[in-house]
Amino acid sequence: MSDTIKYTLDEARIPKVWYNLVADLPTPPPPVLHPGTMQPVGPEDLAPLFPISLIMQEVTTDREVEIPDPVRDVYRQWRPSPLYRARRLEKALQTPARIYYKYEGVSPAGSHKPNTAVPQAFFNREAGVKKIATETGAGQWGSSLAFAGALFGIEVQVFMVRVSYNQKPYRRALMESYGARCIASPSMETNFGRALLAKSPDNNGSLGIAISEAVEIAATRDDTKYALGSVLNHVLLHQTIVGQEAIEQLALADDYPDVIVGCTGGGSNFAGIAFPFLGVQLRGGRKVRVVAVEPAACPSLTRGRYAYDFGDTAHMTPLTKMHTLGSTFMPPGFHAGGLRYHGMAPLVSHVKELGLIEARAYHQTQCFDAGVFFARNEGILPAPEANHAVKGAIDEALRCKEEGVSRAILFNLCGHGHFDMQSYMDYFAGKLTDQNYDENELAMALAGLPSVPEPA
Amino acid sequence: MSDTIKYTLDEARIPKVWYNLVADLPTPPPPVLHPGTMQPVGPEDLAPLFPISLIMQEVTTDREVEIPDPVRDVYRQWRPSPLYRARRLEKALQTPARIYYKYEGVSPAGSHKPNTAVPQAFFNREAGVKKIATETGAGQWGSSLAFAGALFGIEVQVFMVRVSYNQKPYRRALMESYGARCIASPSMETNFGRALLAKSPDNNGSLGIAISEAVEIAATRDDTKYALGSVLNHVLLHQTIVGQEAIEQLALADDYPDVIVGCTGGGSNFAGIAFPFLGVQLRGGRKVRVVAVEPAACPSLTRGRYAYDFGDTAHMTPLTKMHTLGSTFMPPGFHAGGLRYHGMAPLVSHVKELGLIEARAYHQTQCFDAGVFFARNEGILPAPEANHAVKGAIDEALRCKEEGVSRAILFNLCGHGHFDMQSYMDYFAGKLTDQNYDENELAMALAGLPSVPEPA
Repeated sequence: MSDTIKYTLDEARIPKVWYNLVADLPTPPPPVLHPGTMQPVGPEDLAPLFPISLIMQEVTTDREVEIPDPVRDVYRQWRPSPLYRARRLEKALQTPARIYYKYEGVSPAGSHKPNTAVPQAFFNREAGVKKIATETGAGQWGSSLAFAGALFGIEVQVFMVRVSYNQKPYRRALMESYGARCIASPSMETNFGRALLAKSPDNNGSLGIAISEAVEIAATRDDTKYALGSVLNHVLLHQTIVGQEAIEQLALADDYPDVIVGCTGGGSNFAGIAFPFLGVQLRGGRKVRVVAVEPAACPSLTRGRYAYDFGDTAHMTPLTKMHTLGSTFMPPGFHAGGLRYHGMAPLVSHVKELGLIEARAYHQTQCFDAGVFFARNEGILPAPEANHAVKGAIDEALRCKEEGVSRAILFNLCGHGHFDMQSYMDYFAGKLTDQNYDENELAMALAGLPSVPEPA
Repeated sequence: MSDTIKYTLDEARIPKVWYNLVADLPTPPPPVLHPGTMQPVGPEDLAPLFPISLIMQEVTTDREVEIPDPVRDVYRQWRPSPLYRARRLEKALQTPARIYYKYEGVSPAGSHKPNTAVPQAFFNREAGVKKIATETGAGQWGSSLAFAGALFGIEVQVFMVRVSYNQKPYRRALMESYGARCIASPSMETNFGRALLAKSPDNNGSLGIAISEAVEIAATRDDTKYALGSVLNHVLLHQTIVGQEAIEQLALADDYPDVIVGCTGGGSNFAGIAFPFLGVQLRGGRKVRVVAVEPAACPSLTRGRYAYDFGDTAHMTPLTKMHTLGSTFMPPGFHAGGLRYHGMAPLVSHVKELGLIEARAYHQTQCFDAGVFFARNEGILPAPEANHAVKGAIDEALRCKEEGVSRAILFNLCGHGHFDMQSYMDYFAGKLTDQNYDENELAMALAGLPSVPEPA
């Protein structure tokens, strides 16, 4: 058979636990610091923002965290997600490589984000939380939390980066369809937003600003908590169902990846596909090359500094050690809004420092080239973020061809591009440019990193 | 368990045959007539438009038509599609009804249309066809054929109703992503299009006009055939995999529908879900109520005449007996573009005349109300077309509640609404209106029906 092959899993095989890579690491990640005291934060410091159940997941060193039945019941709506062998793509590339992709676009929101939105909404509801405030860039996360909030009866308020709010009204409409309230950020609803708008009424916003506003709302209201769609340990933890399912599905194919490719913005979809395989390796199992692909215009892993930094612009979050371009860094505009963040998940950063993963940066045009080539062969149009993973996987496959070696390549196709058609229109119209960030601006942003004393 | 339940089928259970309702009908549908001779058309009359394999499917009276392996290989990418029991919706409605829905939005194009686009592209390729011309209204069909054309290496040319071409650039971009060429209709590429534009350069187009242009291209070029996304017998035939899978999935649930609801534009998704169940009934099995739901603004089944009519505006197609509003009828604007056609599939019309199905018409606002209610409970945002089926199913469920009876209701959720967010934005902004068609215009269109002598 020469056609694309789908590997399905029975519903009963949806993982019963999330996998925590921390348990298998040779050294733990550096502690999260309180910016006032520069001391490690304790659960009580995070309590205004998150329910205690999620805080415990954030700090646990247990290898496995049980997935509650009501969460698995919702996962069942679209999980186990399919794993495909891209036979048509292989043929078009004339490569001896075996290319597999896990497809997360089958979720109701069209991306991997509901994997964590659902448990976050569930644990908040269990804790009696009535309302969750969050931020969103391109809208994938906001619409996923809106979906999960609707299912668990939690009010959702989304601060959406103003430029996206104006340019992507359809993602906003999806959030509203699920009953969420979507606000352009900076907004008049927070002190921070009002201060920014007083200075510059036409402020376009950024993810860092939107995070600050959502955190402010949660920190100052008793009935409201905060939720983040990437970066944090518990978010990465929830996404590990992706890689766990992939291990089982590849076993059905009697195969195992030599290379894993994932795109990285905050790091959650990358961790989701890669961490379970890294765990196998760390426990003495088979070794795997893992490649993180990021946008050249916002290259935290390849050009950022590994340092303590804030997660937001107003410096309301704790300090985490991560690959960062500096919290004041403003990347140039590009279409993969979900990869447009100054920092990288601390756990992904730590794993990079440990030498367990590689990183690579691509410009957007070459990623769209790859995405359209993929669509014409595999039939699925990827989201612009996912195009980075597609490009990385195709490059690995072409290397196999050059070397005359058949390797198994696995990547995560983290979402479909149905909400991103404007990007594709711009691409076809030749309007896409590959802007570089400003080196001086990066230097300034890095110079502005908070100074943190070496830990005792 | 109180959550929504998914019934999956193993890939091996993808049907091996399409089911042909004609074989089980008490009387055959009236013949298709040649408009020049008023005699039944033979396969040779259709040969300029379709490959002979599809023509034979159009006229066959065999109960089963084998699905070729290469078609099943592509179906495998997203089939069997899931069947859900809408437990969350049932709870929200406080109904004793058992509501099931088949979800076709999991296909790469997001609707049921690839079910027929794939075999149509396959049989054309087998016949050595290099290029297919087609029309599209809202774009679901055009993007599905573009997808199938890409997989089988066939060039696809889509005439898109000009008003949609301008208002729905994202569907157009999806077609272009798959490599198809999309042209606003009326166009300068056909005699018919040029004639219309000479008369009125700002002609907005209609599905009937776009069909005429695509047919003209196919009829006048040796290397080009024509494809239609609904209405014809072989198209309905291909969609029967939906109902066949549903029968097996409901058996897993140990249930059988008392009522089946489908939305009807040309009739293909309706036939797909309903015909296999009607076949069971006609062969002496369990009886089922079948409800066709159509837009009140374009009500062919509830207000049209059962008469011979043309399928297109230029009167280039054969004459088929169907429920029609007249080929010159112009429905008012509404958002379910896929339901905006003057006629109904001859086979669906025949089945209506035989008393095997009922029909009901709804205005769009009440359908969007139903669709948003569905999304907030089930998590999936339906396409505007599918909202009609959702509304019909909810009304049946509320009737169960009034009567205190638990019935099993099955409907086809034929596509997701991710490409239709402008409609939802208009709905939330209160801009949706429920326009009625013009009664005088309908009377005129019906008066213009071709006069066909009674068959001997």
